[in-house]
Amino acid sequence: MSEEVKQESVSLYPVSAPATLKEEEVCIFGTGDLGRSLGQRLLQSGYRLVYGSRRPHSCGPIPSGAQVQSHEIAAQSTSLVFVCVHREHYDFLGTLAPQLRGKVLVDVSNNLKKNMYPEANAEYLQRLVPGAHVVKAFNTLSAWALQNGPSDANRQVYLCGNSPEAKQAVAEIATKLGFTVLDRGSLCAARELEDFPLQLFPEWRMPMRLTIGLTAFFFFYLLIRDVIYTYVDQKKDNSFRIMVSLANKVFPIVSLILLALCYLPGVIAGFLQLYRGTKYKRFPDWLDRWMLCRKQLGLIALALASLHVLYTLIIPIRYYVRFRLAQNTISQIKDNKTSPFDTTMAWRTDSYYSIGILGFGLYLLLGISSLPSVSNALSWREFSFIQSKLGYLTLLFCTFHTYLYGWDKFLRISSYKWYTPPGYMLCLVVPTLVLVLKLLLILPCVDKSLTRIRQGWEKTDPENDGKKSLLT
Amino acid sequence: MSEEVKQESVSLYPVSAPATLKEEEVCIFGTGDLGRSLGQRLLQSGYRLVYGSRRPHSCGPIPSGAQVQSHEIAAQSTSLVFVCVHREHYDFLGTLAPQLRGKVLVDVSNNLKKNMYPEANAEYLQRLVPGAHVVKAFNTLSAWALQNGPSDANRQVYLCGNSPEAKQAVAEIATKLGFTVLDRGSLCAARELEDFPLQLFPEWRMPMRLTIGLTAFFFFYLLIRDVIYTYVDQKKDNSFRIMVSLANKVFPIVSLILLALCYLPGVIAGFLQLYRGTKYKRFPDWLDRWMLCRKQLGLIALALASLHVLYTLIIPIRYYVRFRLAQNTISQIKDNKTSPFDTTMAWRTDSYYSIGILGFGLYLLLGISSLPSVSNALSWREFSFIQSKLGYLTLLFCTFHTYLYGWDKFLRISSYKWYTPPGYMLCLVVPTLVLVLKLLLILPCVDKSLTRIRQGWEKTDPENDGKKSLLT
Amino acid sequence: MSEEVKQESVSLYPVSAPATLKEEEVCIFGTGDLGRSLGQRLLQSGYRLVYGSRRPHSCGPIPSGAQVQSHEIAAQSTSLVFVCVHREHYDFLGTLAPQLRGKVLVDVSNNLKKNMYPEANAEYLQRLVPGAHVVKAFNTLSAWALQNGPSDANRQVYLCGNSPEAKQAVAEIATKLGFTVLDRGSLCAARELEDFPLQLFPEWRMPMRLTIGLTAFFFFYLLIRDVIYTYVDQKKDNSFRIMVSLANKVFPIVSLILLALCYLPGVIAGFLQLYRGTKYKRFPDWLDRWMLCRKQLGLIALALASLHVLYTLIIPIRYYVRFRLAQNTISQIKDNKTSPFDTTMAWRTDSYYSIGILGFGLYLLLGISSLPSVSNALSWREFSFIQSKLGYLTLLFCTFHTYLYGWDKFLRISSYKWYTPPGYMLCLVVPTLVLVLKLLLILPCVDKSLTRIRQGWEKTDPENDGKKSLLT
Repeated sequence: MSEEVKQESVSLYPVSAPATLKEEEVCIFGTGDLGRSLGQRLLQSGYRLVYGSRRPHSCGPIPSGAQVQSHEIAAQSTSLVFVCVHREHYDFLGTLAPQLRGKVLVDVSNNLKKNMYPEANAEYLQRLVPGAHVVKAFNTLSAWALQNGPSDANRQVYLCGNSPEAKQAVAEIATKLGFTVLDRGSLCAARELEDFPLQLFPEWRMPMRLTIGLTAFFFFYLLIRDVIYTYVDQKKDNSFRIMVSLANKVFPIVSLILLALCYLPGVIAGFLQLYRGTKYKRFPDWLDRWMLCRKQLGLIALALASLHVLYTLIIPIRYYVRFRLAQNTISQIKDNKTSPFDTTMAWRTDSYYSIGILGFGLYLLLGISSLPSVSNALSWREFSFIQSKLGYLTLLFCTFHTYLYGWDKFLRISSYKWYTPPGYMLCLVVPTLVLVLKLLLILPCVDKSLTRIRQGWEKTDPENDGKKSLLT
Repeated sequence: MSEEVKQESVSLYPVSAPATLKEEEVCIFGTGDLGRSLGQRLLQSGYRLVYGSRRPHSCGPIPSGAQVQSHEIAAQSTSLVFVCVHREHYDFLGTLAPQLRGKVLVDVSNNLKKNMYPEANAEYLQRLVPGAHVVKAFNTLSAWALQNGPSDANRQVYLCGNSPEAKQAVAEIATKLGFTVLDRGSLCAARELEDFPLQLFPEWRMPMRLTIGLTAFFFFYLLIRDVIYTYVDQKKDNSFRIMVSLANKVFPIVSLILLALCYLPGVIAGFLQLYRGTKYKRFPDWLDRWMLCRKQLGLIALALASLHVLYTLIIPIRYYVRFRLAQNTISQIKDNKTSPFDTTMAWRTDSYYSIGILGFGLYLLLGISSLPSVSNALSWREFSFIQSKLGYLTLLFCTFHTYLYGWDKFLRISSYKWYTPPGYMLCLVVPTLVLVLKLLLILPCVDKSLTRIRQGWEKTDPENDGKKSLLT
Repeated sequence: MSEEVKQESVSLYPVSAPATLKEEEVCIFGTGDLGRSLGQRLLQSGYRLVYGSRRPHSCGPIPSGAQVQSHEIAAQSTSLVFVCVHREHYDFLGTLAPQLRGKVLVDVSNNLKKNMYPEANAEYLQRLVPGAHVVKAFNTLSAWALQNGPSDANRQVYLCGNSPEAKQAVAEIATKLGFTVLDRGSLCAARELEDFPLQLFPEWRMPMRLTIGLTAFFFFYLLIRDVIYTYVDQKKDNSFRIMVSLANKVFPIVSLILLALCYLPGVIAGFLQLYRGTKYKRFPDWLDRWMLCRKQLGLIALALASLHVLYTLIIPIRYYVRFRLAQNTISQIKDNKTSPFDTTMAWRTDSYYSIGILGFGLYLLLGISSLPSVSNALSWREFSFIQSKLGYLTLLFCTFHTYLYGWDKFLRISSYKWYTPPGYMLCLVVPTLVLVLKLLLILPCVDKSLTRIRQGWEKTDPENDGKKSLLT
């Protein structure tokens, strides 16, 4: 096709071309908060603005510079209308259908909670005014950002709609208002966009509840063992240990358990696939949900591990520790006997610290690689190398770190105050289980079966060979 | 519409379709640095290249493989021309308007400083050659990146223009040169793109100046109190304290003040809205500018807090501290009296450390959530939960940490050397003020009024009820 | 162009418009793993699905709800076909060319290794079926993500193709399946997309090898000096030092060398440009490759520096250190002489720590600014300010930190056990060299020449002045 067509096709976008030359006019239906906030911003960005109102003469204050008209008249003057009206009041738009034919209708509405209506507001609007080009946009921004322009989490305008030209026209306006535009496809994405501003960390809830539960359990468990037992047994008040010593036991314990819980669903899934002999059957719901919150579990575990590191590093500046070390030196002098240097002790504690540091370093690497911009830059082969290979290595290091901490206390009877095992023993159960199960899965014979299943092989498939010739 | 139209519309993009089959030819006007750098890269990527020059026979060396012609002849051979000429020399393009009709003109120019001209270079070019499709692109890249391909901060080619087809053709080339393309809308975004490469942390200047000012003030204030006073009073030289002890006082003090200054404009804005009874009046300019640099204030505060953490953690390996601890032990033995264990002291110091660690942990969380990729993934409800709720919690923890540091020294007369209060007391003023004001704002009665105002209610609005029926 | 055209052009996208109203039908060629995984997901997302198979009656199990037909019949029923067949079996598609005319063909294939074929699979497919609109898409996702929807590194569907409408149709489906779409341009980007899932940190290999080599060298070098020498010379076993003391020497040494190696190619390039008198000659290959892995070198250096920080901070809680400090105090008491406070020592060690902390702080800043989302938000002027100006400052601080560590031991004969210099002396060679060379380059006279060359000036260019009038 020749030059002429190319030039014609340019004129398909009547909105953008003359934009820089003269002021454009847009229309807002509704003079409430959203309408006024958006209107202020549009006026500041150089648009001419007309409000459509049911009662144009008594609609309350509007931004200076804007006009108010009846809906019918307001709609005639522009090719683009922002609908800043609650969904419950959309009915009147149906009666305006003839006037709105061919216009771009921007639906900025949100609902108060999810799934209030069977269809998205924007889809409902499109159904009411089938001749208009409905675009869902701006609804993910706060009224503050609409009025004052982009700020941190309010930079991006998501939009969707069935007409590319209509989306282009809205994108143009959003760009002029200072926002970045992200096209999310056709109008069927409207529901997702309408749900977005309502969400408050939905995928963090289960992991957070688990964390709080585990933390509370171990806090009281260790409170009984470390503070109450000492008080009952020796009448000694060491309640001050709550602030640092106890915290520095609870945090690493919960962190290690959470890290192990990141990897447990993976090995369970592996055994399930082995047992079923296929990968095409869906996992049970609980396993699916568990797998979907592994990232959150891991990040909480990392946060707790970081706290553990900080709590450990302040040990030597604590008053209690300095007091005890001085007492120790003084008593050595008074008794006039110096304890000899214990090389095994030096090896053990240094290994303990060193493994801990390396484990934490790997942990940080896992955390960094789950930042959205980093994980987006990785191919999934790279991502799974980090999250799986390095992840298991991290778990191995951290588990080993804890075993070294225990050392010879596992068999010492004095560890079991009131017949309860110390906290670090309890927390070793899950990681050890995960590591043992993973070890079974990477045995050559098991691994071979599992790989075959994950490449599409099925146990009960008689025609397997014929099909394999076509596909991965 | 049927298949035929669909196929026709494909041929609307004459540039892209045959791209893989034969070498394309592009043209560059100008044989200077930018033209030669871009030309080298285009030749390496398999394009045929012709330069347009005023003096085609004496234009200096050009990349081998390219031709040089007069502007007229060069323009005829291709449908796409890169204009690598300074804006001052654009005049000749006006005379070429007939030859450039229907062509894509890529404006890659930048200016030496902002606002040199009333309109953007690309808009000026479009005005000179109205028949061409001007696309602003590649100007945000360094000449090095143009010559050698993408590297860290030079991966993205921003482009804007009024013709989607022309943008598509330029995007095609950028992709082949290895860059990622980001469409920024119509040509009216050109000014923004032209300003982008000139900026050098504009929004960091005010916070950095404030930080430097506060740091200098507290450094000299504490130098006088901690070093000079000691020297004058006791003739003791403890100037070595400058390197660690003093730094570890200045950094946390400035950090806490900066953190409080992040939240102060928010509470001021709240009181202003309460007083005015509306949210539609713009804030005074100073408050607007202050609010826009809260993120930078917070990040600098976080950096200083991190330094404070590191400076604190090296305390026990300092020569001075080890010396003093040993002296302490030795004197206890010589005097043959051991100081008893002080449980209150243990509680206080451990709480102090623990609160500090938790505060720093929350601080880090705030910092991570302001990474662009993280904040973009959050809905603004999530973002404001973190930045506001967790932010105030962070401020509360850090302020409490500082009060615990002071403990009983507030009323001790010896703290006030030369009648000056210690640094930590000075730094508590702003955070305490912010916390008290915030407390007032979240009192139920005040909060209710403020919420109503933020939902669009206005004090002086007689028609309020009529309007409310339509809008949020 | 008028409203009619606008509305017609909307109907160009027959796929998207009625999408929400009735179920769409898509076709998958191939019933292997990929085809079945994708099919499951499509069915779950509400698509009707028909498989095309060579042997429709014996093709093995397919997801319930889908039909199986011969390729010819399956192709007729839909306008979009996913080709889930290995490239080796593409031949049959050539014979189906008439039936596939005007259809969208989605190529999801990958190869087992790079450069197996002279042209990309998608380009080969387009050549086989020239009448179809081939779109490369979904190939960067794992089969797991295709079956179960997006997860961390599997959120983005990259696509490329020559027909915008075909890409739009595929983008539509990807959005409905829950993925984010990134358009990578025309079909010539297919090779890049096909290589993407095969890569496993290609640009990290050389830096990792270098790191491992340097770490191994310094580990054994220091093992000999610190452990074996002591054992041979004094018959004392201090092998426990391997775990922490040795690690805390090797990591900072390698880190500093790697940091210096980040900046060495830059200064070499500067001198090369000065010598050649032009910037348009390509650098030798080794220098080019070196410059391309500077970011990786820097990040590994940062990781090692972080380990150095952690290893340093746990020093005071080590058994060995506590033992030695107590011994020291005890021997002071026994000998009844206290070592006096050494102000020089206090100044030196405090400076050493303080400079180290500030260097590490800058180091972290460099690391944060190389996160993709941060560096994308920076203009290249800002990025080069951080990476170059702050980078050299970091190198200066870290080098100075190491010199302070050495202090007066450089000239002490006892440092040279077995005539070998200590590790920190060896590691100072490269950074010192880089800093001296950089100092030469920023001497005003040298800097002026270099700037001129980097602005396009060439030594052997006789026509230089004539050309300069046009370009930067």
